Amino acid sequence: MPGLRLLLLDLDDTLYSTTAFAARARRAAMEAVASFPGMTVSAEALLDELREVIAEFGANDHAHYDRLLRRFPEAALGGHPRAALVAAGVAAYHDTKHGGMEPFPGLLDLLADLRRAGGLRIGVVTEGLEVKQFEKLHRLGVYPFLDRGMIFVSEAIGISKPNPKLLQRALHCTGVPAAAALYVGDNPVNDVAPARALGMVAVRFRSPGGKHAVVEGPAAPDHEVADFAGLRTVLREAHGVAV
Amino acid sequence: MPGLRLLLLDLDDTLYSTTAFAARARRAAMEAVASFPGMTVSAEALLDELREVIAEFGANDHAHYDRLLRRFPEAALGGHPRAALVAAGVAAYHDTKHGGMEPFPGLLDLLADLRRAGGLRIGVVTEGLEVKQFEKLHRLGVYPFLDRGMIFVSEAIGISKPNPKLLQRALHCTGVPAAAALYVGDNPVNDVAPARALGMVAVRFRSPGGKHAVVEGPAAPDHEVADFAGLRTVLREAHGVAV
Repeated sequence: MPGLRLLLLDLDDTLYSTTAFAARARRAAMEAVASFPGMTVSAEALLDELREVIAEFGANDHAHYDRLLRRFPEAALGGHPRAALVAAGVAAYHDTKHGGMEPFPGLLDLLADLRRAGGLRIGVVTEGLEVKQFEKLHRLGVYPFLDRGMIFVSEAIGISKPNPKLLQRALHCTGVPAAAALYVGDNPVNDVAPARALGMVAVRFRSPGGKHAVVEGPAAPDHEVADFAGLRTVLREAHGVAV
Repeated sequence: MPGLRLLLLDLDDTLYSTTAFAARARRAAMEAVASFPGMTVSAEALLDELREVIAEFGANDHAHYDRLLRRFPEAALGGHPRAALVAAGVAAYHDTKHGGMEPFPGLLDLLADLRRAGGLRIGVVTEGLEVKQFEKLHRLGVYPFLDRGMIFVSEAIGISKPNPKLLQRALHCTGVPAAAALYVGDNPVNDVAPARALGMVAVRFRSPGGKHAVVEGPAAPDHEVADFAGLRTVLREAHGVAV
């Protein structure tokens, strides 16, 4: 086995629980909207409808709340301008971000130890909007541990998961052969399959209750972990990394 | 003199110090950007350049920070992707909003007293983006004191200051004659002149250090105040409002 030289990490639902954060932030937003006097729609009903809007228009749509409120009759909104309710939701969502985005336990310690050990380049390969993904890396405290120029965001690269070319770009940038590169992700279709297709070491991050925890993909991962203690063990025992 | 039936308020630099808030938030953003290791540009230099960007592209441009960072040579950015720096600036700016937007002293007390006194409809007429302006009204705590349907934002109406049609729309919505309506704003050109042109009672809000404090306009206001204690006095003594 060649020595490991590159560690690539997925972001959402791998570095932190995107699912739990989104649920908390959306609830805060919908509770803010439902709290306006005269509103006859509950936070629960707004959340149910919001789930449909996100399923229909995607998670990065810029007019979620406006679309959501158009789906209720004018009379249900208590005479408030739609923009007033949208603004309250947006403010509550943003305020949740402030302190509501926490890395999974052990992530920062592991990254710090890997930097101390040396020998491994560390990057992120993620699907999403460029500035939004970087903001998450800052808020999670992960950015300082990553190698410069080793953060690959689909919007910026023009390649979307599960196309293996996104991971290939990262390999190309470092000149590391696929077999000496390990990719950690939670999605068996978007993360594990393309990494395996390229001949990289694929680690499935299956956190309990994670969004894709019960889905099976087309390719078996090389390793499966439930948390960053598990990843540390894989790095140490299967790949001889001194952490 | 007919009894006053409608009070309309400008938002920016009238309900709160937009100038002071923007300065604080921009400084926080630029300090966050300058703090990245390897950056050779100071927060002060970034702020100077940002002022130019805003002057050139307007305050509601959506790519301020990206434009700003394009204006520095790649080497000055310490090897950080521009999006990483933009994201840090955006996050710091938003976090400042959280607790950094305070109404001018006496505003909320005056609005509460006016609601108790009754007889006056209260609205806001403001230049800007609809959701952004509503977010300010929420964060300032002003929204609950305003009459439903009496918030007029230029983006939503399609009419921009200083066109008097923006204020006229508010008059039209209430059926109140111009002479029974009072408009308070800080800008002699955008606020005082159109209100006077329509025959409304125009109050110039000239807070010390305000953005337009030293500018003179084409029309003299009916009243001039430096704070909300001053507006209270005008309402009580010149217009017989029981506050």
